[in-house]
Amino acid sequence: MSTAYDSNNIFAKILRGEIPCFRLYEDERTLAFMDIMPATDGHCLVIPKTPARNIFDCPAEDLAAVTAVVQKLALATRKAFSADGVTIQQFNEAAGGQEVFHLHFHVIPRKEGEKLRPLPRSVADMAELGRQADAIRAAL
Amino acid sequence: MSTAYDSNNIFAKILRGEIPCFRLYEDERTLAFMDIMPATDGHCLVIPKTPARNIFDCPAEDLAAVTAVVQKLALATRKAFSADGVTIQQFNEAAGGQEVFHLHFHVIPRKEGEKLRPLPRSVADMAELGRQADAIRAAL
Repeated sequence: MSTAYDSNNIFAKILRGEIPCFRLYEDERTLAFMDIMPATDGHCLVIPKTPARNIFDCPAEDLAAVTAVVQKLALATRKAFSADGVTIQQFNEAAGGQEVFHLHFHVIPRKEGEKLRPLPRSVADMAELGRQADAIRAAL
Repeated sequence: MSTAYDSNNIFAKILRGEIPCFRLYEDERTLAFMDIMPATDGHCLVIPKTPARNIFDCPAEDLAAVTAVVQKLALATRKAFSADGVTIQQFNEAAGGQEVFHLHFHVIPRKEGEKLRPLPRSVADMAELGRQADAIRAAL
């Protein structure tokens, strides 16, 4: 199995602007945007701009930058959705649960007793996702 | 619900040496040790030494230090267990899945097709856990 970086993965296309996304936050090293197949309302993703396949090959400084943005989004999604908690997930290789082969952290706001939507998940309503993105941006 | 740091949580006791652990790695800011109720063989935890309840209140520099050790352990557990992937989980507040209220990252090596042991999980055999810790330390 090849573990080389494939620059045709969907997040690489988002980074190049070839595919749209609901952008939440961006800096020199990172991008945060809405997951379009959300586990809960407010579910978003944080990725490095560097072409890292997953945690195994990500340069330390990019990983640190991504983690700082994960924290920022954990706080913002909690606030925006009055969430009681936040679940962070990060999957490496297919055996680890990875489906898109560009390093990403899931930030999933949770309400008391609310379960994650089961896999496979449906694509969200885009108008609703846009409203959720507005709420998160306002809370950043 | 109080979200103050409770210094009687089990990881605080491990940090103070009041409870033993299978120590894998330690530096000025972090400690890594075996999870005694593992989801897979090799499942370990990385925590900051600072008294942070979870991602919401962890100082940035401690979070960055913890993430660097998560990466180190992801690589070491993959090597030690010839794993095909690694799943990282980090739970914040009970609604987010948190059970011990000191910030921790789960590092869970995975084999192709291997499922996580279901919750609630049993306490592992301590001799076996010790052998797994030796294998991870050797791979660090």
